[in-house]
Amino acid sequence: MRDFLPADVRKRNYVIGIIKEVYESYGFEPLETPAVENLETLMGKYGEEGNQLIFRILKRGEKLVQSAIFSSPERDESRTLNELSDLALRYDLTVPLARVVANNKNELPKFFKRYQIQPVWRADRPARGRFREFYQCDVDSIGSSSMVVEAELISAVSEILKRLGFNDFVVRLNHREVLADILDTAGVPEELHGDTLVAIDKLDKIGTEGVATELAQRGVPETASKMLLDIFEETHRIIGEGKEVNRTIVSNLINIVSNEVLTKIGEILKFAPGCPIELDPSLARGLSYYTGAIMEINVPDLAGSLGGGGRYDGLIGMFGKEQIPACGFSLGLERILVVMDERGMFPPEIAESTPADVMVTLWNEETISESIKLASELRSAGIRVTVYPEADKLGKQIKYADSIKVPFVCVLGENELAENKVTIKNMGSGEQNTVERDETGKMIAEYTA
Amino acid sequence: MRDFLPADVRKRNYVIGIIKEVYESYGFEPLETPAVENLETLMGKYGEEGNQLIFRILKRGEKLVQSAIFSSPERDESRTLNELSDLALRYDLTVPLARVVANNKNELPKFFKRYQIQPVWRADRPARGRFREFYQCDVDSIGSSSMVVEAELISAVSEILKRLGFNDFVVRLNHREVLADILDTAGVPEELHGDTLVAIDKLDKIGTEGVATELAQRGVPETASKMLLDIFEETHRIIGEGKEVNRTIVSNLINIVSNEVLTKIGEILKFAPGCPIELDPSLARGLSYYTGAIMEINVPDLAGSLGGGGRYDGLIGMFGKEQIPACGFSLGLERILVVMDERGMFPPEIAESTPADVMVTLWNEETISESIKLASELRSAGIRVTVYPEADKLGKQIKYADSIKVPFVCVLGENELAENKVTIKNMGSGEQNTVERDETGKMIAEYTA
Repeated sequence: MRDFLPADVRKRNYVIGIIKEVYESYGFEPLETPAVENLETLMGKYGEEGNQLIFRILKRGEKLVQSAIFSSPERDESRTLNELSDLALRYDLTVPLARVVANNKNELPKFFKRYQIQPVWRADRPARGRFREFYQCDVDSIGSSSMVVEAELISAVSEILKRLGFNDFVVRLNHREVLADILDTAGVPEELHGDTLVAIDKLDKIGTEGVATELAQRGVPETASKMLLDIFEETHRIIGEGKEVNRTIVSNLINIVSNEVLTKIGEILKFAPGCPIELDPSLARGLSYYTGAIMEINVPDLAGSLGGGGRYDGLIGMFGKEQIPACGFSLGLERILVVMDERGMFPPEIAESTPADVMVTLWNEETISESIKLASELRSAGIRVTVYPEADKLGKQIKYADSIKVPFVCVLGENELAENKVTIKNMGSGEQNTVERDETGKMIAEYTA
Repeated sequence: MRDFLPADVRKRNYVIGIIKEVYESYGFEPLETPAVENLETLMGKYGEEGNQLIFRILKRGEKLVQSAIFSSPERDESRTLNELSDLALRYDLTVPLARVVANNKNELPKFFKRYQIQPVWRADRPARGRFREFYQCDVDSIGSSSMVVEAELISAVSEILKRLGFNDFVVRLNHREVLADILDTAGVPEELHGDTLVAIDKLDKIGTEGVATELAQRGVPETASKMLLDIFEETHRIIGEGKEVNRTIVSNLINIVSNEVLTKIGEILKFAPGCPIELDPSLARGLSYYTGAIMEINVPDLAGSLGGGGRYDGLIGMFGKEQIPACGFSLGLERILVVMDERGMFPPEIAESTPADVMVTLWNEETISESIKLASELRSAGIRVTVYPEADKLGKQIKYADSIKVPFVCVLGENELAENKVTIKNMGSGEQNTVERDETGKMIAEYTA
């Protein structure tokens, strides 16, 4: 887990700012949930591998002392784990959302459109753009089964990436039923569908052979595995983009898919015009709660995805009495930042930002109050002002201003004070001007505007 | 720990926005640190009571299996705790800052002024405005011993509270050396100074008798305890505010305090003009890392404080070779929000905000694409637009728009489509107008501006 120094935070906030702006322009509302969830809320929602990656919090005080580890003689490992821990760090933002919706049904609108930008934690092995603490930028639409929802999510996310300067991303689109049909046709027993999809999800990461090995380990028959990999090698990312789904191509490749699903996919494409959507029947997504459309965003220079999502009509019902349809999309902030950094995509005002517009120097111990007053006057004019905190030699103060790249320095010496003036030094040009004190703010504001 | 629904998040973001703006206007830069720290980074920094309140994270996988709990026959409770856990949730933002400064000395400016607005976690009993997960809004100045630093922090924090609409807050100011001098005079043995200050810190919470009991329990002699409480009852919050410290009053009350400390306090008052500072020799602050000035902000209608801080010249040295002077201030977001909520201090645009400016309806299945296109056109005009996701009866759609308090609804029926027009319904007045489609954005923007 990493610290973010000021230059990092500014870049992060720039991206988050654009994400928020676009989500809000689509009518999504902000939600925040606590970092810590009850362990039982999270368990069993992310598949077996997910369970292993959850950070658990140790019980406190009395509760811990009363746990089996201290009171019973046996040592049963899995039982011990649950005796020791009742809370955990959130693993994603979708499960907490489902819990919130189930708990607050009457307070939320029928169609609840929310965004949520918060960190999540996974005890995973770090890799490029993958960290144990990372931010997800989620957007979800609750309450409707209409494909308008899927299309709106794809449109919003595509608009964000375009506004950030991405022009080569692809939104891969698939549907759980397409995958189920393919798996059935290949002869994968239904009880192995989940495991098989988790393995296929790794096609990009571990390659065809890796997936074959994993499928064998999970008990998928060799004939089924072979047929499956043939289908995926054939179809993987070859179906072109377009406003209208080309049903002939799709049905030639996967003639097993039902017309109903093709209609849904067609609607998504139609309702999300201008988005670079690519149908990819091999897209699986690792999470087990998806029930309908699944999506993932890729760029050529990153092995992982910039984000992904899908429909999960069964999840909210796990926390309440009612099944409520839902669909969401999650952007990975760190992935986006890695690519933007490598490509140099940040605008200059973000990449070269400074802690302040002006540094006010201290002339001597006696004039400190006057320097502080000047700083306050300049702030009233909307300028960001830092005050050098010690009455060091002026040369040292100006050298420091240069080191922190402040564009202007104000000197308020005895002469300036006597004449009610201020000397402004432009740190870029070296130019120096003595001006009326109450003109100072206006003059600097003109420069920095 | 709580969920924040959209109306809550908007209020939180409003307050955070003002805090950021003011901190940045003073030249403070943003920093972010991970939620999870090494346990050893946190242990021993917050006093004994603090240690108990740290949320510890259970070790994972192999590491956990290898821990003593599974491998050794004895059960030593305190050893077990450390065997089970190597990570913990951050308890405040000051210790992580000290770690960051010690680790990144060469990358940071000599005077590092940073702000940090992030959650912290304490396994504390919840109370009004006190939660187990809460946000701290910290501002710290690293690298200078000058009282310009203390004054600047108090000024920035006071400006924030004024801009939020607080006009009755008081910044209580004290100095660790004042407390040490009082404790010495009262006859408290030096090794009990820390414990005594923790007890005195609770004067507001548990009253004179409660503090007396606690002092007795901690082994403070009764004569010392009595003298101490006499001094504090006499001086508690009675020394008036003012631009210049009234040395006569102060020295009459605490004639034991050294001239050097009085000079420092005088400088703080002088360099922070216009701030409602009140000297309070009974202010203690519970954290053990303070070494100089200590501050706390109070309002009449909250038992706890809105924020507090102080100088901690010894903390950074605990993480690196070098002692670096430092001083900081922390505002408690939840405390501020509790008081603002109760007093109704939020501006109407925050208190009555809506998910979108316009809801676009769907006429029928065939015109969905056109409605989506209209929404996109309106967004380009800077309007926040939500699209009703299903082709329900128009009445139902408009009823829904009313329930989510959207001020305008756009209808794009067959007539409108044929004539390239849009019908705008003003939900407040009920007024309805059919206008040219490409005028729609402009007309709504005028209303919502």
